Amino acid sequence: MTKGPRFTPLVDRLPAAVPFVGPETQERERGRPFVARLGANESVFGPSPRAREAMANEAAETWKYGDSLSFDLRTELAAGLGIAPENVLVGEGIDGLLGYLVRLTVAEGDNVVTSLGAYPTFNYHVTGYGGELIKVPYRDDCEDPDALLAAAREHDAKLVYIANPDNPMGSWHSAERIQAMIEAVPDGTLLVLDEAYLEFAPEGTAPAVDPDDPRVIRMRTFSKAYGLAGARVGYAIGAAPLIEAFNKVRNHFGMARISQAGALAAYRDAAYLAEVQEKVAAGRNRIAAIAQANGLSTLPSAANFVAVDCGADGDFARRVLAELIARDIFVRMPFAAPQDRCIRVSVGTEPELDAFEAALPQALAAARG
Amino acid sequence: MTKGPRFTPLVDRLPAAVPFVGPETQERERGRPFVARLGANESVFGPSPRAREAMANEAAETWKYGDSLSFDLRTELAAGLGIAPENVLVGEGIDGLLGYLVRLTVAEGDNVVTSLGAYPTFNYHVTGYGGELIKVPYRDDCEDPDALLAAAREHDAKLVYIANPDNPMGSWHSAERIQAMIEAVPDGTLLVLDEAYLEFAPEGTAPAVDPDDPRVIRMRTFSKAYGLAGARVGYAIGAAPLIEAFNKVRNHFGMARISQAGALAAYRDAAYLAEVQEKVAAGRNRIAAIAQANGLSTLPSAANFVAVDCGADGDFARRVLAELIARDIFVRMPFAAPQDRCIRVSVGTEPELDAFEAALPQALAAARG
Repeated sequence: MTKGPRFTPLVDRLPAAVPFVGPETQERERGRPFVARLGANESVFGPSPRAREAMANEAAETWKYGDSLSFDLRTELAAGLGIAPENVLVGEGIDGLLGYLVRLTVAEGDNVVTSLGAYPTFNYHVTGYGGELIKVPYRDDCEDPDALLAAAREHDAKLVYIANPDNPMGSWHSAERIQAMIEAVPDGTLLVLDEAYLEFAPEGTAPAVDPDDPRVIRMRTFSKAYGLAGARVGYAIGAAPLIEAFNKVRNHFGMARISQAGALAAYRDAAYLAEVQEKVAAGRNRIAAIAQANGLSTLPSAANFVAVDCGADGDFARRVLAELIARDIFVRMPFAAPQDRCIRVSVGTEPELDAFEAALPQALAAARG
Repeated sequence: MTKGPRFTPLVDRLPAAVPFVGPETQERERGRPFVARLGANESVFGPSPRAREAMANEAAETWKYGDSLSFDLRTELAAGLGIAPENVLVGEGIDGLLGYLVRLTVAEGDNVVTSLGAYPTFNYHVTGYGGELIKVPYRDDCEDPDALLAAAREHDAKLVYIANPDNPMGSWHSAERIQAMIEAVPDGTLLVLDEAYLEFAPEGTAPAVDPDDPRVIRMRTFSKAYGLAGARVGYAIGAAPLIEAFNKVRNHFGMARISQAGALAAYRDAAYLAEVQEKVAAGRNRIAAIAQANGLSTLPSAANFVAVDCGADGDFARRVLAELIARDIFVRMPFAAPQDRCIRVSVGTEPELDAFEAALPQALAAARG
């Protein structure tokens, strides 16, 4: 036997850590299922019936590779945005697109700016390509555009990441504030504007799309409001030369055929999207009411989840989280201090929120006891 | 406006070339559909009806992210192979897995050995991570294990790639020959054994799986015999430390949920697989008969396609290919000289092979004319 493969020096240095432990993994470790799946910001209301039908119909066609250009979906997304297809790239979820983007821009030792406690999978990609992360604290439980830009300038960052609305806090900035941020991006830095939760946000959250602005790339997804997390469909909006550059590194035949069909049908069903938006708004209100009934406050949210302030420090919130999980409620707290005083609760179905309502007082008592 | 993103020096040097132009892209450019889809080695017989049913049923569950470990599928694949789940990794097709593997092992300037004319997507990944490709000629229309190993030794290669059965020639080596190759892999080189077409090959083509052998990683897929190319499901078989290393770089939630369900159902339907294997064998015979009726020879094939020797040089074969495409027959010729005297014809349905049979004499006449 020989010594086996030689990894790259970078890979040898990488930690084995994973960004998230999935709920199925937790269920297997626990030996029993969750009764409420409120931890991954999925859309419990599911995809549009038309998307389900389109996917079921496409199952028989799955012997064919998917269209490498996702032409139909890309064309309709571009038309919906009033821009050219050359400004849109469909990819394997925002996670996949972020991976490609980091690969395109970040060499070993390059600096990247994000917020302390923001999306771990972005950080996973940056670290995975040898980038150095500079993490800027939240301000007033919001990502801080001015501080992010200042750090980008100071560290000559290749990328600066912001999510609007933010995950995990659910906070958001106005379109004007984000547009001002775009205008102030330093030379040579690209703003990564993650709009995964945009469909849940009030009007006036997203600046107008300027497809030729080379300073920003925007990421959107079918995983949240469209209820297709398991289909892995996201899209990037950006200047044509940047979008074209993805063709140097992306997995050209990586998009599942059924997923393309499902996303297209989902995108066309605006009425269903509106229903989901209403249900999510109602669900946020109910989570807030449940929290309030237990003496807890919640943060305003423009997403499909609510950050529930457990009213003490991170250790206490972690105990609450563990007690909820012990009571079969899947929730998460992907926060850094001091935001780790919160737990993050995704909007669920009525029965799931009933289960959360029943479990929360017990979990709080156990965490206090 | 600022100057926009700064790409890495490697990305700046990368060509914009893509490994393959998809048939849908060609259809859009031509302005009309193909009548026979015989160019991508897909399985025209489609997935098992049980897989179709499983995928249709899973459509309603697609609001959930897929299991990040593909636990059920991985467990059953391992059981079927008589090895531990730690020796198996499910990923987004062999294309996705090859990309991760190259990223794990190939830094800029590292050498990688493959055959001249072998799988372009592997080369795409190697180039994409800055590796240097050393290409070894075919010998007697087969990949040449001895020459591949000699080149790996001479160039201190990180990876040496071989497909058994081979694509695009359809040729194959015996299990003994491949096992001897594994035994002779140089220290510090990893053998990448692509077995995408194994299910179509005679008994005795694959060496026994030794899950702890660190010198080889094997790649298999649901894209070919299982008829799920559009679902993007492949798997790697290798020593546990190598399999574990993928967790440092892979897109943990990248597997579509429907795809996992479809692959599992397909894997369980051995009777359907046997049917497909029979139909593919019959289809290969028919392609050979059609070629023979036109005065052309074919190469023996252990895959779901046949290399048809057009009997002259590459320029002539390229003319035949163009004339077939002009007659709405989608075929490819991903060969390097002297193998480029051939065109590659995937097994099709009876009506598709009827269309090929009708078009071939005309295409040959036009190419000669």
